[in-house]
Amino acid sequence: MITTGLENVVVAQTALSRVDGERGGLIYRGYDIHDLARAVSFEEVAHLFWYGALPTRAQLDALRTQLAAHRALPDAAWPILRALPPNTAPVDALRTLVSALGAGQPFTRPDLAQAIALTAQVPALLAAFDRARRGLAPLAPRDDLDHAAHYLYLLSGRVPTEQQKRALDTYLILLADHGLNASTFAARVVASTWSDVYSCITAALGALKGPLHGGAPARVLDMLQAIGAAENAERWMRDALARQERLMGFGHRMYKTADPRAEILRDLAREVCAPDFFALAQHVEETGLRLLHEQRPAERIYTNVEFYSAAVLHAVGLPKDLFTATFAVARMSGWTAHILEQLSHNRIIRPDAEYVGPLVQSVIPLDQRK
Amino acid sequence: MITTGLENVVVAQTALSRVDGERGGLIYRGYDIHDLARAVSFEEVAHLFWYGALPTRAQLDALRTQLAAHRALPDAAWPILRALPPNTAPVDALRTLVSALGAGQPFTRPDLAQAIALTAQVPALLAAFDRARRGLAPLAPRDDLDHAAHYLYLLSGRVPTEQQKRALDTYLILLADHGLNASTFAARVVASTWSDVYSCITAALGALKGPLHGGAPARVLDMLQAIGAAENAERWMRDALARQERLMGFGHRMYKTADPRAEILRDLAREVCAPDFFALAQHVEETGLRLLHEQRPAERIYTNVEFYSAAVLHAVGLPKDLFTATFAVARMSGWTAHILEQLSHNRIIRPDAEYVGPLVQSVIPLDQRK
Repeated sequence: MITTGLENVVVAQTALSRVDGERGGLIYRGYDIHDLARAVSFEEVAHLFWYGALPTRAQLDALRTQLAAHRALPDAAWPILRALPPNTAPVDALRTLVSALGAGQPFTRPDLAQAIALTAQVPALLAAFDRARRGLAPLAPRDDLDHAAHYLYLLSGRVPTEQQKRALDTYLILLADHGLNASTFAARVVASTWSDVYSCITAALGALKGPLHGGAPARVLDMLQAIGAAENAERWMRDALARQERLMGFGHRMYKTADPRAEILRDLAREVCAPDFFALAQHVEETGLRLLHEQRPAERIYTNVEFYSAAVLHAVGLPKDLFTATFAVARMSGWTAHILEQLSHNRIIRPDAEYVGPLVQSVIPLDQRK
Repeated sequence: MITTGLENVVVAQTALSRVDGERGGLIYRGYDIHDLARAVSFEEVAHLFWYGALPTRAQLDALRTQLAAHRALPDAAWPILRALPPNTAPVDALRTLVSALGAGQPFTRPDLAQAIALTAQVPALLAAFDRARRGLAPLAPRDDLDHAAHYLYLLSGRVPTEQQKRALDTYLILLADHGLNASTFAARVVASTWSDVYSCITAALGALKGPLHGGAPARVLDMLQAIGAAENAERWMRDALARQERLMGFGHRMYKTADPRAEILRDLAREVCAPDFFALAQHVEETGLRLLHEQRPAERIYTNVEFYSAAVLHAVGLPKDLFTATFAVARMSGWTAHILEQLSHNRIIRPDAEYVGPLVQSVIPLDQRK
């Protein structure tokens, strides 16, 4: 039997997250995503993944101190920042920067200290790249802001409002982990060879870039901006479907009901978006669902996490081309936890293929081939 | 059922290569590896993967011309070469350089032209890095040498002997593809998200680096050099086994009998190695197999492809720390062909995990946690 896409093939035990696609549930180490989004910070979620429990106040302070200690741009990043063309996609810049951070370092197996350091470095690298392409020097890091606020600060030089900070923090929590999605799985495949953490994260970033994975939210915003006003939505979307194009922001292989992250993000978007923009997004969502249902009545299609991710990230002031890379800021916590989990019960990941090519051919000498 | 390592799980149909681990067979599109190693060149094998058939003389000339057109160092590589510290592992340098080549390029799906260009660029990037770390400028490319000879020329500035060229060419053929090994599978996972070819190859390079995958041959040479003389072999290897260390160069999950590549490489090593060195390698091989059999009499353990890879690459003059990256020079043909094959029948690769963490936990407010 061939299981293209490895759908329903169980490749690992994980204690990190559980996606219940039938009932629309998502838990991180037993905590419901709704509770986490409401009650804790991204750093607490990262602690939960890395150490197995939500932190006490003292543990959280310690983790914050560790993260803050890695906010300065590593020396190895500077020449790469200068070398990257300004039109580089931020996720490509990040992939190259993370790879370069690994260059010249002694080879070691991934460990928790590296997980924490890289999670702190990723937003610093991204912000430095974003400023470099705008001709601006990177800002000096601060230690009085939490992870979400500090990322926004490093990009803009302004301390975000409480609402902006909380919106991004919630986004980071919601996107922190999601079972063995393609980027997490890519990281685990690389980890399974006993490679280093830079190689694992580089692979994950490459997978995240794909339009079927983390490359989608920017395209949702493209769509919203192209539609522009509610009255254009139906025609625009019917035309796209007629051209066999995929409507971005709808459907997810895992969920046969509403994606809980999409529900939370919709509520968040309602709070933080300009009212006109939110109204447009909601109209486009409803229209998209209606047209998809019309086209494929037998399928249950729901809004996915990308749809309102786009609205929320736009509302907190992030440029569209940073959306995929900001997904990586969140997923760093899950990726690194999965890498460490893979190594705790490792077996090199090497599936089989069914060979369907020719069976026996004789090599004909070059000059007699036709 | 959990299939850690995805052993025997069939994730794709492939027409590229078939590993028959029971009978020790390996074919590329129907051609036996013995016939290919004896009768064709690496470029012919690459043509076989990319176009589905061995080339005619005219097709081979056309492919050689295309490959030669991409031997010059791309502009984007220069600043990265200058930025990488001289103590960077070559495979890390290559991972960073390939990622940087993708930076600033418009996003496209992987295609055959990119496969050919990157396959030609990889040896040029490696050689330029190797010379840069020795304080030497890269050499101007030539178009009168084939792939294997040109790589050796770019490293040393000398046209290799016919024997050296043929030895490396045979190595490149033998290592060109091998089913869904971890690096090839990592490339396919990344490709399955519709990401770009640079992301796929970057991921593959990260996986290849792992000591359980392409990181092994350099460690075989470490072992041979540490043993130094035949009379030390048994004591050295018994000590290593007593320390629970893995003897590098033995055993492969897929093969329950001799790995045909190892057999061909042993014959090649006999031809190209200094007689003393070959005698040492063969004595270490026999001793290793004997001790492993003594330790685990129920298992069938054979010499794997890494063992004599190390001897052959050493004999053609490659420094030990280029072995893993030279494996990549070979595997570029297979990786790129697998990426294109994945896209021809794509479904995003996203396995399941069995969740084994806690099921329901309530979030306790931060200051009440213990």
